[in-house]
Amino acid sequence: MTNKVNVGLIGAGRIGRVHAENLIYRIPEAKLLAVSDVFLEAAEKCAADFQIPTAVKDHRVILENKAIEAVIICSSTDTHAQFIIEAAAAGKHIFCEKPIALDLPKIDEALAAVEQNRVKLQIGFNRRFDPNFKHVHELVAAGKIGAPHLVRITSRDPAPPPVDYIKVSGGIFLDMTIHDFDMARYLIGSEVGEIYAAGAVLVDPAIGTAGDLDTAVITLRYTSGAIGTIDNSRRAVYGYDQRVEVFGSEGGIVVANNTPHKAVYSNTEGSHSALPLYFFLERYTEAYVAELKAFIEAIRGDTPPPVTGLDGRIPVVMGLAAWTSYRENRPVKLSEISA
Amino acid sequence: MTNKVNVGLIGAGRIGRVHAENLIYRIPEAKLLAVSDVFLEAAEKCAADFQIPTAVKDHRVILENKAIEAVIICSSTDTHAQFIIEAAAAGKHIFCEKPIALDLPKIDEALAAVEQNRVKLQIGFNRRFDPNFKHVHELVAAGKIGAPHLVRITSRDPAPPPVDYIKVSGGIFLDMTIHDFDMARYLIGSEVGEIYAAGAVLVDPAIGTAGDLDTAVITLRYTSGAIGTIDNSRRAVYGYDQRVEVFGSEGGIVVANNTPHKAVYSNTEGSHSALPLYFFLERYTEAYVAELKAFIEAIRGDTPPPVTGLDGRIPVVMGLAAWTSYRENRPVKLSEISA
Amino acid sequence: MTNKVNVGLIGAGRIGRVHAENLIYRIPEAKLLAVSDVFLEAAEKCAADFQIPTAVKDHRVILENKAIEAVIICSSTDTHAQFIIEAAAAGKHIFCEKPIALDLPKIDEALAAVEQNRVKLQIGFNRRFDPNFKHVHELVAAGKIGAPHLVRITSRDPAPPPVDYIKVSGGIFLDMTIHDFDMARYLIGSEVGEIYAAGAVLVDPAIGTAGDLDTAVITLRYTSGAIGTIDNSRRAVYGYDQRVEVFGSEGGIVVANNTPHKAVYSNTEGSHSALPLYFFLERYTEAYVAELKAFIEAIRGDTPPPVTGLDGRIPVVMGLAAWTSYRENRPVKLSEISA
Amino acid sequence: MTNKVNVGLIGAGRIGRVHAENLIYRIPEAKLLAVSDVFLEAAEKCAADFQIPTAVKDHRVILENKAIEAVIICSSTDTHAQFIIEAAAAGKHIFCEKPIALDLPKIDEALAAVEQNRVKLQIGFNRRFDPNFKHVHELVAAGKIGAPHLVRITSRDPAPPPVDYIKVSGGIFLDMTIHDFDMARYLIGSEVGEIYAAGAVLVDPAIGTAGDLDTAVITLRYTSGAIGTIDNSRRAVYGYDQRVEVFGSEGGIVVANNTPHKAVYSNTEGSHSALPLYFFLERYTEAYVAELKAFIEAIRGDTPPPVTGLDGRIPVVMGLAAWTSYRENRPVKLSEISA
Repeated sequence: MTNKVNVGLIGAGRIGRVHAENLIYRIPEAKLLAVSDVFLEAAEKCAADFQIPTAVKDHRVILENKAIEAVIICSSTDTHAQFIIEAAAAGKHIFCEKPIALDLPKIDEALAAVEQNRVKLQIGFNRRFDPNFKHVHELVAAGKIGAPHLVRITSRDPAPPPVDYIKVSGGIFLDMTIHDFDMARYLIGSEVGEIYAAGAVLVDPAIGTAGDLDTAVITLRYTSGAIGTIDNSRRAVYGYDQRVEVFGSEGGIVVANNTPHKAVYSNTEGSHSALPLYFFLERYTEAYVAELKAFIEAIRGDTPPPVTGLDGRIPVVMGLAAWTSYRENRPVKLSEISA
Repeated sequence: MTNKVNVGLIGAGRIGRVHAENLIYRIPEAKLLAVSDVFLEAAEKCAADFQIPTAVKDHRVILENKAIEAVIICSSTDTHAQFIIEAAAAGKHIFCEKPIALDLPKIDEALAAVEQNRVKLQIGFNRRFDPNFKHVHELVAAGKIGAPHLVRITSRDPAPPPVDYIKVSGGIFLDMTIHDFDMARYLIGSEVGEIYAAGAVLVDPAIGTAGDLDTAVITLRYTSGAIGTIDNSRRAVYGYDQRVEVFGSEGGIVVANNTPHKAVYSNTEGSHSALPLYFFLERYTEAYVAELKAFIEAIRGDTPPPVTGLDGRIPVVMGLAAWTSYRENRPVKLSEISA
Repeated sequence: MTNKVNVGLIGAGRIGRVHAENLIYRIPEAKLLAVSDVFLEAAEKCAADFQIPTAVKDHRVILENKAIEAVIICSSTDTHAQFIIEAAAAGKHIFCEKPIALDLPKIDEALAAVEQNRVKLQIGFNRRFDPNFKHVHELVAAGKIGAPHLVRITSRDPAPPPVDYIKVSGGIFLDMTIHDFDMARYLIGSEVGEIYAAGAVLVDPAIGTAGDLDTAVITLRYTSGAIGTIDNSRRAVYGYDQRVEVFGSEGGIVVANNTPHKAVYSNTEGSHSALPLYFFLERYTEAYVAELKAFIEAIRGDTPPPVTGLDGRIPVVMGLAAWTSYRENRPVKLSEISA
Repeated sequence: MTNKVNVGLIGAGRIGRVHAENLIYRIPEAKLLAVSDVFLEAAEKCAADFQIPTAVKDHRVILENKAIEAVIICSSTDTHAQFIIEAAAAGKHIFCEKPIALDLPKIDEALAAVEQNRVKLQIGFNRRFDPNFKHVHELVAAGKIGAPHLVRITSRDPAPPPVDYIKVSGGIFLDMTIHDFDMARYLIGSEVGEIYAAGAVLVDPAIGTAGDLDTAVITLRYTSGAIGTIDNSRRAVYGYDQRVEVFGSEGGIVVANNTPHKAVYSNTEGSHSALPLYFFLERYTEAYVAELKAFIEAIRGDTPPPVTGLDGRIPVVMGLAAWTSYRENRPVKLSEISA
């Protein structure tokens, strides 16, 4: 093990600040030396709040800092691939939020740069580090359900993002379902070969006007023969709904939502219990810490990161296949998208 | 096995009608030949509703009927002991609702008559036949929790009975807790040696004026060393609350309430599920059938009934001990009540 | 209301015997006068067990019996349509097990006969009478979840039927999923316009050899815009898995499985609770009684039966669409199957 | 609000280290300047692990440090009262682990010193800060259950402490039940007037030989008329069992245990779910942070701490009453112990 890993943060928006706070307060093995943001004020506020020595506007200042071994890329999606390429060239290990990019050539260019410069790249699929889903993954990997036959992923947000965000997001399949595509692979350790996507605009017509969907059901055909479904909604009025189920030849596993408390209140009307934790920051608090700890450990121990660049690429292929499937209303093989 | 058992019903009130309906529709091994009630109209209505050939005012007509092998005693509590004595003298097998009587000499006289005439007597502790409690009993008997250390019985009614009923009921410990005293013995197969009862009037002052309590917590010291608690309320606004818990050296078992459905509805306010089944007729529907089936089987197979006269006597001792404990605010040994 | 309804039973196999027992013991408003079965012994045993006055080989004896007002058709699927036609011609009201037939012209002929003879026809979609699903239906109908967006039906059997049965069953979509197709319509009161079926043979290769599937996921596009999924397996090792979920603009409802008891046993290994009720006879005990009660009530009150001939026809259209979709691996509109 | 609060830690054992870690990583509003322990190595290791500038053997070095505003007393129970007195004299605000002392004169002397020196004193009843119990407290305080009638506290440890610890612990009622006595007051905001304690040695005879109990059921008579029960065991093989239930005129609230995950695994044997979080460090992780945050906030905002010296005294009175009750096998009024 090396000593503390010096880290730079690129992007001081909501998720960047989550990582900054975790690095400072929860991961003693890392030291956050600098933060950059195209909005300098954001970088400065982040630095002040989390005692980061340096705040700059230009991420290249971070990349040029010889003391920094690793960067956390939390800037806007359209910059991810470019920043990966630059960071790799600068010899920095890279933790990058999903997606790497919305088109495959850019992704492939970024992955090539990572490989060429022999740096580590971990993609921010935080849900793999959720104790519930991790437990399911482990039970399946241990053979507890035998051969997986059915996989079911429920993934519903409490409220849609602003339409302006939706317009540049890549659409529901690349912005929201992409996490579920990763989960689909993670849960049973098998690849998906074909996708059929049904979608609708049921939550807000403005989302449809922006060219996107707000409700979707995706059928996955795994190469193993198993069949999966993902269902998405941009608005579950009862809160963030994140459940999975796997079913196999020897058993099944169902995961319920986490809730802020376990109290059940009964009166003449019925028995009342808590709604799910509100949204991703509440639900995945520990997962965000765990993914970054894993990244830091991979650097310190010089081991491969647990979520690779390929793990970042495949869900984008799946998202593109879902869009094609939805638009042409037919099942689409992933090999059609990326041979 | 003999053929169908011919049965007479004494008492056509609410619980008598439950038994009549079960005998007719659910227990083909029995044939209900006659019903009596001091209110002849009640007997006649019961006979009409359930196709019983004979309805009479005087229970002695039933006892004199040579074709009848067994009687179900559902008359008012103050008649139980006397009717047991008469039925035993007439050579009938006897199923009798709890309690046998509110004082021990009467009970002992009734049990002596049963023994002398070599008839079978089963007491109506229907909860022993509830699938939940039966399952707990069996797990404990199978040693699944090791040595029992703690027993907890929750027993709360949805609403108190009329005060006129309460006045002649023997009070909460002999009318309501008596079922829980039986359950306490049934769950772990050990006897109680000492009781401490704390009581209060919190539901309705009129119950206190009538000399009774509506809320109670009873501590039980088992001769095995285990400790039990029973809590009672005459009014749980959310419905009939019937749960048990046993805890031992190797594990524990908790039983939740049965509900009319398993749907959970979530909206912006919370997650809402069903209240318990409303009251004893809904909750113990199957238990009432099962206890009577067991009685009929005991007759047909000439085996001992599963709830004996002694099982009917001991909870009365416990109820009397609880009253003494409450009145003198001290733990009372059962041996003080009945040596 | 008329008096007791005189009923004849056609078919004394497993489900026929369930209806016979319910008619005798649970539905006092009906009187079962005769039973027929092509295996006379089966009819005779049924008659003996349930005190039915007449047992015959030929169902026409029942149809010719003037005293009989209604028939319960529980014979093999290939006879349903023909027997409906004959019963309608004989002026009998008809309760018929699903499916009416495996091809639409036969169904249409049967429905025409029913209409022409102005008799009542109720199809045996018993799950509509399950208290859980009925409660969901009522909450949705009452607007509690707002506009339905997503429907999810989990339907997994504990074990596959014999391959000989599978060969003549019409295949998974017409034999097993047909109940779920009905449920899909019942839950939200909207019709399905398009179906996409993914299927696999994962449980038993012999099922594949017989030309059938044992695992399936079906995507439903409702005409309302909602999206549904059904997942089926012929073997859930943990028992009969029958759950539904509906999700809408204002809330969601999830239904868990019924279990034989509510005890949770905890030891050093974990917390252990009961598996679902084993199979349809255990799970839908009450639903079988309720559907037949509803049929008898419809006759007595001269009201339309709650599950109509059209309700029997549409799921067959859906099953045929599912087979086409599976075979051609594309979404199929119901209008392609039946214009 | 003042700026950061400078803190000294007295006692670097297990619980002292928990507070040190929380102060460093989770409570930016505090700064931990020094740690003392009679075992200097323990203080030095704690300082090294959590970057505390100063480690000493003598707590007086901390009390003499002018820069330090507040102390966290985590030393052995027999030193608590004396250290409170010294810290108060030094003008430090005080957070002290429970119990203040095992005898009342010492406690009263300590509370007098606190009052005289006008410093703040908070007692470490961390469970009040558990989100579950806090939620119950708030629902009750908001009148959601109407008038409280019954309170039930389940409190069972996964394994007993070493017998050497038990010998100096004050026994089960002052070491373990003391938390539950505090919870009993906290949940419904009413005082207890009388206690009846039943106890047994069922877990380990060595505990009995040491003069202590390992199993207990305590009945509480609240001055409001409500009745409470606490049950304790030193060994629940399935893990740390921490549940509460309150029941009142308008409803009831039940709290289940927290578990490490929400996955339910079903196979042919049954449905299996997670055991409770193992012990207090796992279960009350967030509560430990929250209580210390509350203490720091009380100092910064100059408001009363949420758990006062009196809140520390009353549970000791209750523990002494429980011992008297157990030894004399009779209900004991708290006024007998402390007028």
